[in-house]
Parts: sequence; C-alpha cells; structure tokens
Amino acid sequence: MPTTLATLINHQVRLAARPVGLPKASDWHLTAEPVAAPGDGGVLVKVLALSLDPAMRGWMNEGRSYIPPVGIGEVMRAGGIGTVIASSHPGFAVGDAVSGIPGVQEYWALPADQVARSGLAKIDLRLGSVPQWLNVLGMPGMTGYFGLMDVGQPKAGETVVVSGAAGAVGQTVGQIAKIKGCRVVGIAGGPAKCDWVVKELGFDACIDYKAPAPEGAKRWDAVREGLRQHCPKGVDIYFDNVGGEILDTVLAKINLKARIIICGAISQYNATSAVAGPKNYLSLLVNRARMEGIVVFDYADRYPQAIAEMAGYLKDGRMVSREDVIEGGVAAFPGTLNKLFSGENFGKLVLKVADY
Amino acid sequence: MPTTLATLINHQVRLAARPVGLPKASDWHLTAEPVAAPGDGGVLVKVLALSLDPAMRGWMNEGRSYIPPVGIGEVMRAGGIGTVIASSHPGFAVGDAVSGIPGVQEYWALPADQVARSGLAKIDLRLGSVPQWLNVLGMPGMTGYFGLMDVGQPKAGETVVVSGAAGAVGQTVGQIAKIKGCRVVGIAGGPAKCDWVVKELGFDACIDYKAPAPEGAKRWDAVREGLRQHCPKGVDIYFDNVGGEILDTVLAKINLKARIIICGAISQYNATSAVAGPKNYLSLLVNRARMEGIVVFDYADRYPQAIAEMAGYLKDGRMVSREDVIEGGVAAFPGTLNKLFSGENFGKLVLKVADY
Repeated sequence: MPTTLATLINHQVRLAARPVGLPKASDWHLTAEPVAAPGDGGVLVKVLALSLDPAMRGWMNEGRSYIPPVGIGEVMRAGGIGTVIASSHPGFAVGDAVSGIPGVQEYWALPADQVARSGLAKIDLRLGSVPQWLNVLGMPGMTGYFGLMDVGQPKAGETVVVSGAAGAVGQTVGQIAKIKGCRVVGIAGGPAKCDWVVKELGFDACIDYKAPAPEGAKRWDAVREGLRQHCPKGVDIYFDNVGGEILDTVLAKINLKARIIICGAISQYNATSAVAGPKNYLSLLVNRARMEGIVVFDYADRYPQAIAEMAGYLKDGRMVSREDVIEGGVAAFPGTLNKLFSGENFGKLVLKVADY
Repeated sequence: MPTTLATLINHQVRLAARPVGLPKASDWHLTAEPVAAPGDGGVLVKVLALSLDPAMRGWMNEGRSYIPPVGIGEVMRAGGIGTVIASSHPGFAVGDAVSGIPGVQEYWALPADQVARSGLAKIDLRLGSVPQWLNVLGMPGMTGYFGLMDVGQPKAGETVVVSGAAGAVGQTVGQIAKIKGCRVVGIAGGPAKCDWVVKELGFDACIDYKAPAPEGAKRWDAVREGLRQHCPKGVDIYFDNVGGEILDTVLAKINLKARIIICGAISQYNATSAVAGPKNYLSLLVNRARMEGIVVFDYADRYPQAIAEMAGYLKDGRMVSREDVIEGGVAAFPGTLNKLFSGENFGKLVLKVADY
C-alpha cells in the first residue's frame, strides 16, 4: 500500500440507534478516520457510488431476517461500485472497476481473508454505466429478473402487474415481462412516473395510486378501477414491492393459479404499529394461487447469466433504465434514504460518492 | 320409477337468507315436497348421510368464489352418501352405494342429462364405512392428501404443523405426514382432542390453543411456546385450516423454503368485520417461503388413486379415522352445522339422514 493512501480520510455513516418509524438524523452518526490498510493480500476500494434501497430499512431493525441486522455503531450496509486503488490480491488490480457491499463510506479496505466472502466482483463498465451497475445490472435488476422469471414463471399472453413500477426493481420487472410477451400494467405514484413507465418503458398501462379519488370514492378505488380497466383478463402475476392496501386490491383481481411475488413492502417498512396483513389472502385459496417471497442472494451463482441477458437488452435498446443520482457524498446519505419512503425519487436511487 | 316412490316425501333444508356472522335459524327454511321423478335415464338416490364442512359457510355468501354461492331459496349444497333406489341410467343400478353432492335433503333425483356432470360415483363400502367415505375417503381426505402431497411436497425428516388437527382434514394430513416420515405437530382446541391426536393418531405433539394463558402471558403465547418446544428445527410445512392469529404465530416460526397450504380459515368465516390478514406475511419474503391455496376439485381425476392409497392405510391400521355422527335427519342440519364453528364437534362432522 503506497504511503500516500495512509493520509486519506475515510468518511463514514454509522448506525447510531434503531429507528422507530422513519429514520431521523439522530439515528445516524457521521465519522471520519484514516483509511485502513488492507494488509498483505488485501484490496482497497475507492467507492464511486452507493445503492440506496428500501431493503435498507429492514437491515436497521433488530430481529431474525435473511441477513443479520446492522449493529449499532457499525458502518451502514450498502451495495456500491468502486475502483481498486491498491491491491496485493491476485484477483484484483489497481484500476479494476468492482461491485460489492462497501457500506456507506468512501473507502473500503478488505483484508486478504475477507476478499472471497465479501462478494467483491469485477465489473465491465462497457456493459453499462456506474449507476446502471447499481440498477438493472445490479441487485435491483437481479431481484426483478429472478423474481419474475423463477418465481413468477411468466408465459406469453399473461397479464403482469408490478407495483413500484418506476422504481429500480419495478422498471426491470416490467420491461422483462414485455420482452417475454406479457401484458404489463404498472402501479406508481404520480402522473410523471406513470407517463414515463408507459411512454419510455413501454408498459401497456400504469395506474397512479396517488390520483385523487373522485367524489364519493374511497382511497383505493382508483387502483381498483385501474385494474378493472387495464387488466380485462385478470392478473396472472403480481410482483409486489409495496404491500399494504395495494397488495389487497390486486389480490381481489387475481386469476386461477396466479403467482404473487413478495419482493418488498415499502408501505409498511416504517410502520410503528403492526404490519397490515393482506386481508384478501383467502383469494389465494379461491384461486389456487401462490404467494412466494424472493431474496436475490439465493441466485448469486446465476447473476452472470442474467447480467449478460440484460446487458444485451440495454445494448439493443429493448431495455432502458433510469437512475436518480444524488450528489453530496456519504454525508447526504441520511436525507437521501428517506426520499425512498416518500416516493420522491424517480428511478433507481443512487448516491454519488466520488467522480467516475 | 315404481309408483310407490311417488308417495315419498322429501324433507329439505333451503337457504332462506344470507347469514351475517354465525348462521341462525331464520337463515334456513325447512320444506317438504313429494319426491321428484328422475325421468328416463335418470337416477333416484336415497340419502344416507351428509358431510358438514367449514367450506359450507363460504357457499352461503354472495360473491365470486371457486364455486357459485347457493341461491336464496335453493336446497343447501352438501356432499353425501346414498343408495340408488331407482335408476334407468346404464351406469347405476338399484342398491348401488354412491357418493355425490345431493344437498341437504332426503332424496336426490337426477335427470338423465345431469347424471354425468353431477359427480355421482359408485363407492365400495368394503373399503370404508359410510362415515369414512365422507371423511378420509371423501372430500376432506382428498383435500388433506392433495394439499399435503402436491402443494406441500413433504420430505422425510421435515416438520409439519397442522391446525384443526382433530378435524376431518387435519387428521388425514397429520397421519399421511407421519407415514411419509415427517415430524408432525398438531394444533387443536382442548385436552381431549389433543390427547386423541397424539395417542390415537400418532402425532408427535399437539398444541392446545384453548389452554388458558399463564398469568401475564398473552392469548396466543401458548401456541408460540408450543411451537418453540415441539418444533425445535422450525416449521417446514404448515397446513392451515384456521387462519387468524394461529396462522400469524406459525408464520413467525417457518424455515427457509417453507410451504404454507391455505386450505381454510375457520376462525374468519363468521367474521362480521374484515378478515384478519396475516400480519407476519413478510416472513414469506425473509424465508423465501410459499403460501398457496388448494381446492380439492382440481384433483378429481386423481381421487381414485388417493382413495386406493388411503383405503390401504385404513386396512393395514396405519391410519385411523374419527367421525362425529349426529342423528336427527335433515331437520337437525342448522344446529349441527354451527358445532363446527364453536369447535364442539370431535372428528369429521357427519349428519345421519337414514339408517345404513
């Protein structure tokens, strides 16, 4: 490790407290420390951009989940893209572009014994930009791909509904479903997102769940009416990123043998009372339908195949992507994360940490 | 049709009104009319016994379901066993024992054009008694068999939990799961049922959901504690007949790739407010687990194979069955049905209509 690196300062965002409801400033602790030396056989990565995902909210809670919670005082977990700036590991060279889980910090030092199990992987920036490697070619893209293809098993002609349609996972799911010959209806918040989903992504329709209810109508009647209008043959696959009332409303419209992919429940992540369970879950019985969860890490050995397929779609123009890249470095992390929960972001939310 | 039959009176129970909550006497209308002539090519069945099932409550409600609701003024739908007392249909002879959906009445007249699609089928009373043909060899048995085997796909060594364990479906599910090499834990109401489930059916354990909570404990802590104690390796398959808080409590204990079979939700069928959705449904996500509905009619073409397998288990003693046979004829139907919802019945609830 060149001695000049030792003078670099690593700014970090650590979890200070377990949030109740929406995370607030006091739940975070910003720290600065000299860059750690990765040691013999280790790798030092300069972080370029971080992925901000709804799942982060779950990682901040105590309790059993698909991965351990972030500990109090630990650097907040985050996926990201970086450049190798020092390496004595045979698999990585200075200048390599890499993806991994660096956490919310500017530098990621990996000792030799952690490289293999860290998930650090070289990426090819000719296949997609840094933000795209956090979106369609990254975790959200992989989640959408394997959730739709493996759990959903779409057949041409089927109707696929996806919530959070303008989000990172939703945009991927809908576009793949179109490529596979399905009718695709999105659900998103606001006319700008809905327009983009239809005009740029090519969905057949998009329902604005924030549209004001007509006089006398109830809060979710617009979604119900939208499904009735845009899914004349019912719903064969529902890819759920939001949970809550929207999940319930779609459950009332599913077809025989429908598949519901439970990918997330952003409407519930900051709930301070109990999660709202799907009141219409008995629609699963009536329709012999299936509701199944997906966690992307299960498919890690098949990422390369999915990345190759998606990169092909990006190249031939059958797939487009949109990222909402926020400047401001790691200090901007706390405020930026909360944009996810208000639905303020438009496209995959990315925090730029350094120039690329 | 012998002329003497024309003098027979057919007592019937018809749906008078759509119940709100638990069905009450005024929701039913008892009628008596001369036995209808089945006509050329038709069949006349004398009903011996009727099956009383939780699903009946759903058939009384308006709205889209897996079969149309019973119409106001119509004879209540019910499965049953009978004897052919007149026939000019080539497939049925006087004296044949048959199963079908006669409805809550004493005689079932099937005109020629209805025989094929009525589901009328000859049964062999050497394989099981009349009540057993409504239980393990009938709809509940088929539901348990295909729900467990096709949706649940049990593997030897896995832990299977079944609610309504002493009920018609539950007793079948648990015994098949034991035969297939699983650890089986039942959930039932009261020490008598739980004892029977363990001692007679051979379940590994049975949790009494009606057990009084210890001081300071909450209503469902006993179920939670029972699962902790009796499912040390977690829950791989949950066969749910009850819904509500028990479903939620089991969801908190499921393993990776668990399968939850949604067969019924008897705790919710008489709810006058909205059905309680499973608040812990995100456990499906965390555990990449699946919740799937079953409707037995989908497996009609495979009933003979399942009946042969189950009859074999009855014969070799690996399976026992228990029926709660109520005397009193069709007039006793309204009061008897409600025993299901209070959990008063012990074993498959059967209404005897005539001597057999």
